[in-house]
Amino acid sequence: MSNFNIAVLDGDGIGPEVIKQGIKVLNQVAYKFGHTFKFDFAPVGAVAIDQTGNPLPDDTLELCKRSDAIFFGSIGHPRFDNDPTAKVRPEQGLLRLRKELGLYANLRPVAGYKELTHLSPLRPERMEGVDMLIVRELTGGIYFGEKGRRDDGNTAYDTCLYTRMEIERIVKMGFEAAGKRRGKLMLVDKANVMESSRLWREVTREMAADYPDIELGFMFVDNAAMQLILNPAQFDVIVTSNMFGDILSDASSVLAGSLGLLPSSSVGSEVGMFEPIHGSWPEGAGQNRANPVATILSAAMMLDHLGLVKEGDAIRKAVNTVLESGKGTEDLRPKEQVGTDEMGDLIVAAL
Amino acid sequence: MSNFNIAVLDGDGIGPEVIKQGIKVLNQVAYKFGHTFKFDFAPVGAVAIDQTGNPLPDDTLELCKRSDAIFFGSIGHPRFDNDPTAKVRPEQGLLRLRKELGLYANLRPVAGYKELTHLSPLRPERMEGVDMLIVRELTGGIYFGEKGRRDDGNTAYDTCLYTRMEIERIVKMGFEAAGKRRGKLMLVDKANVMESSRLWREVTREMAADYPDIELGFMFVDNAAMQLILNPAQFDVIVTSNMFGDILSDASSVLAGSLGLLPSSSVGSEVGMFEPIHGSWPEGAGQNRANPVATILSAAMMLDHLGLVKEGDAIRKAVNTVLESGKGTEDLRPKEQVGTDEMGDLIVAAL
Ligand SMILES: CC(C)[C@H](C(=O)O)[C@@H](O)C(=O)O
Ligand SMILES: CC(C)[C@H](C(=O)O)[C@@H](O)C(=O)O
Repeated sequence: MSNFNIAVLDGDGIGPEVIKQGIKVLNQVAYKFGHTFKFDFAPVGAVAIDQTGNPLPDDTLELCKRSDAIFFGSIGHPRFDNDPTAKVRPEQGLLRLRKELGLYANLRPVAGYKELTHLSPLRPERMEGVDMLIVRELTGGIYFGEKGRRDDGNTAYDTCLYTRMEIERIVKMGFEAAGKRRGKLMLVDKANVMESSRLWREVTREMAADYPDIELGFMFVDNAAMQLILNPAQFDVIVTSNMFGDILSDASSVLAGSLGLLPSSSVGSEVGMFEPIHGSWPEGAGQNRANPVATILSAAMMLDHLGLVKEGDAIRKAVNTVLESGKGTEDLRPKEQVGTDEMGDLIVAAL
Repeated sequence: MSNFNIAVLDGDGIGPEVIKQGIKVLNQVAYKFGHTFKFDFAPVGAVAIDQTGNPLPDDTLELCKRSDAIFFGSIGHPRFDNDPTAKVRPEQGLLRLRKELGLYANLRPVAGYKELTHLSPLRPERMEGVDMLIVRELTGGIYFGEKGRRDDGNTAYDTCLYTRMEIERIVKMGFEAAGKRRGKLMLVDKANVMESSRLWREVTREMAADYPDIELGFMFVDNAAMQLILNPAQFDVIVTSNMFGDILSDASSVLAGSLGLLPSSSVGSEVGMFEPIHGSWPEGAGQNRANPVATILSAAMMLDHLGLVKEGDAIRKAVNTVLESGKGTEDLRPKEQVGTDEMGDLIVAAL
């Protein structure tokens, strides 16, 4: 019997409609297990720029700080897409939120659903046994290092900087996650070129002494990009820097066949943030076409993080039941196609 | 009737044996078309470290500078692999060679061979029509920017820096390559995060005015990593920075089914360098198992670059004939398996 305050930042595009399904499911969990979830909505992204001129208004940030968890939809709007140099952009809201809340770890599980292997761009035999977790550093590296211009704007630079402390806390998370899974951790870096990667290797090697049961490996990022396509089943937990994690987690996310299935969490400080990995799909917004599963599974990750693992498992089981039934949204090319709303209802019913 | 001096840096592992096949083929071209190729061998990589303590001895560099082209095998040896922080490493030779010779553009064509689609990790329908060229910047960015340590070694940084001039010359190459192909250029960057990427976009947009017939697109690197797996046929020419190019060109190279098929060239200054994209495969060295096709196709790119396009085409045609015959090295899982040497002979015969 617990009470939780959840900040809901549903954002742009399909964000609001998939979040709505997630809330339906959470309400059913609350009812079934006797918890109370209080949902407070706040704007973020393009919607927030329209309302306040700021992609992360102070009120939104304050709400997040005093909540137990953040349930996040998606952000981004085409009118910003062709102008990444615009002074105010939706993404800035997301980056600032991560930094301000100390969400230094982005966790992205990727697993193939047996019933859905036909959706994968890879041949079925390559998808067998794929079940990995990418642990991406989220508040450091080239994203947040010093950047700027020189020579009247004709020279531009970015700095990738990591401190031992930043590396230790994320690699620790990698080792611990591996301990709860199949016991394998792979550090992906570019230590044959980058000094910061060499520090990652040093620190990780030192820490390995504390985790004698974990099988630790090292892989250069170019090779990792190949191996994810050639033989993704070889990976258990991957830990890597912000930029490499951005690239590799997106690459691996398409393996499962639909971005509409994959959840993520961003954690580190007290309050964690939980969101589907897909974007805001503005063309699909308001049409009852989006797949709410990634968002619903993100809600399950949120419950795990709040200590409600049994409840999280119940959601995952309900999702599996519905996917196995052959019903699904259009992206899954299902036997029986349903809309966003109905998909949410089916999962609620399966609970 | 031309004379060319070719520096041969055959390097480590399988380098020497695949280069040997390339030279066989070049000798046959010389005979058939009445040219003279003079080959001068010099050490590079682990072999050079063993002989001189230096992965790129001065004599080797001098030879390269006074040659018309460099024919490069592969470098790398396992005894360095687990110690990327070793003071002297084979890769340093390669990086210095690129920098000293001003080889600022790495060109990597990737195309699926119809007869070999069964080797691709992707489903056959996704490979249909794949024919792209990745133009990677090779002497700038985070590879060569200032890097170092602070705080008693507990903070490490790397700088990604680009000047307008560096961007212009590589993007120009991208536009020109697109003009000779299907007329589509995609700039891949991370302009929503990196200042250097924003300069790339600015410069590229300005240059687009000079190439009204080229269809120019922009894509974030994380999305590009997904699109290369989901729908690689959408790409014609991709132009990108050193680090993103390293990752994306390796990712795309596995699509074709075997790394043993893919050539590359590194150009910019007078003298170009031509090499297979695969590594030194030390376990396979000296066993007559390696696929020489990537090296032989690199020789064809060398001839193109020396102005001998007809001769380059003759090599490509000979390679196709042999691949279509169903004969091949083990990596191709052919109907009839042959060794490195015999594969070279077959291609010579087809010429
Ligand atoms: C929107 C963008 C800044 C962001 C990132 O690169 O971190 C996104 O790609 C992600 O992975 O969440
Ligand atoms: C060996 C390494 C330094 C090199 C690079 O990253 O450039 C290699 O991966 C390549 O792509 O040629």
